[in-house]
Amino acid sequence: MEVLVTGGNGMVGTAIIDNLGDRAEYEFRPLDVEPHPDGDRDTFIASVEEYDAIRPAFDGVDAVIHLAVYVPGYVDENWERIRSVNVEGTRNVLRAAQDAEVERVVFASTNHVVGMYEEEYAPDLYELDHDLMLDHTSPDRPDSSYGVSKLFGENDGRFFVEKMAYPERFYAIRICSLREPAYDHPYGDAEKAVENGEFERGSDEYEETVRRMKAMWFSRRDCAQLIDRILQDEHTEYAIFSGVSDNERSWFDIEHARKLVGYDPQDNGEDWDAPPR
Amino acid sequence: MEVLVTGGNGMVGTAIIDNLGDRAEYEFRPLDVEPHPDGDRDTFIASVEEYDAIRPAFDGVDAVIHLAVYVPGYVDENWERIRSVNVEGTRNVLRAAQDAEVERVVFASTNHVVGMYEEEYAPDLYELDHDLMLDHTSPDRPDSSYGVSKLFGENDGRFFVEKMAYPERFYAIRICSLREPAYDHPYGDAEKAVENGEFERGSDEYEETVRRMKAMWFSRRDCAQLIDRILQDEHTEYAIFSGVSDNERSWFDIEHARKLVGYDPQDNGEDWDAPPR
Repeated sequence: MEVLVTGGNGMVGTAIIDNLGDRAEYEFRPLDVEPHPDGDRDTFIASVEEYDAIRPAFDGVDAVIHLAVYVPGYVDENWERIRSVNVEGTRNVLRAAQDAEVERVVFASTNHVVGMYEEEYAPDLYELDHDLMLDHTSPDRPDSSYGVSKLFGENDGRFFVEKMAYPERFYAIRICSLREPAYDHPYGDAEKAVENGEFERGSDEYEETVRRMKAMWFSRRDCAQLIDRILQDEHTEYAIFSGVSDNERSWFDIEHARKLVGYDPQDNGEDWDAPPR
Repeated sequence: MEVLVTGGNGMVGTAIIDNLGDRAEYEFRPLDVEPHPDGDRDTFIASVEEYDAIRPAFDGVDAVIHLAVYVPGYVDENWERIRSVNVEGTRNVLRAAQDAEVERVVFASTNHVVGMYEEEYAPDLYELDHDLMLDHTSPDRPDSSYGVSKLFGENDGRFFVEKMAYPERFYAIRICSLREPAYDHPYGDAEKAVENGEFERGSDEYEETVRRMKAMWFSRRDCAQLIDRILQDEHTEYAIFSGVSDNERSWFDIEHARKLVGYDPQDNGEDWDAPPR
């Protein structure tokens, strides 16, 4: 199976290719604006903002994993970049998938498409006994232009899959907290903040950051497993899944992915009571 | 109440201003790319595509009714125009409403945001006894790039109203079949097609077109009434309403608008068994 991965050298792309790259059934082709830092991967260099530049990369592809994205800073939203990369870029990817007759597209959406629930209920939401549970049927409540742009991608994917000839399958994953390997554990965000001098280990902010990530953690291996199950799926036309590990504390449903594609995550934030040494 | 109406000289804008323009509590200000054909309305000439051009029209405004739109042909979608007018234009309207501290925005959405249900169930859907009912909780299923662009507007409105200081209220109306005055009845689409030589009066296509419009008709006076109720509402922060008359045959819910803002439509497609003379 030939799998094109836009943004293939980024945080999520490397989680997928690091974990699944040795599998005989997949041939991954990263597409990115920059080469892989190790220089050892054959990257198709292009931006999803330019249809003509990316279109050749779609020939002969069975699946596209569309991860290329502009993630804005919290304060300076930079709508122009969001529109160009996330709106226009996603439309370009879907058009190219259609023109090249690609069977399936997997799309990296985000928890920010429903981020206003967190803004409304935090910090109580980070406690184990809070009972909010969001799934694909929850009304969308984006917390940012970024979230709005990702809803555009989910909706555009549904339009293409239901109305156009290709892709025939479209899966949106609302990715929660996936981190680079050194921070791929429920203490990752808090430890990184300590290193950056934002707060002290053991402070209230530290503990709250840990509680949040115990709920939001999407381990790199669980991400790769969900992608694997999606690439093997033969039953689903359109689905929205939460991209999150099996965290007891989570307010994002994983039953829908379990039921539709057999997602069986291995990690749970509650299994950790300290950062790794 | 000062009410800015983008696209104010179009099909929906004239339905509103023709019906409510004499009301003492409203001062309507049309904004449009073209003057009103009668030349007797003081139109602010600008395109929503240009933020700087429209921004001055928002000063001192209590409500914006955002109707300006690019409606593509069925075959040639013209994504560039859809993106520029419907995506970028709506973002500009929301930004301007925020910057000018406008309290409420009413947004013309469309049945096409859930148009795939019709494609799936028509023509049985046009029968009186079909029991599909769509409301604000139904999963979105856009049938076109146009529908996708209108979902962008609904979601961007929710983001602004929940996260930004202004607008404080946002209402999306999924407008069904609203027509110019000569065709403002359930036989309108069929009679117009006869005039255009598309089919004969009494043909199967004629009868099916009538059945469809008996379900989809949004009379001009019911549209104006819904707008009036929305402009008077003091309880709702965000809502999605169907823009449709009280048609027995409809698959679009009106109970949500009835409950939230007291919408009480006067027209029902079933009351007609022939076109007006």
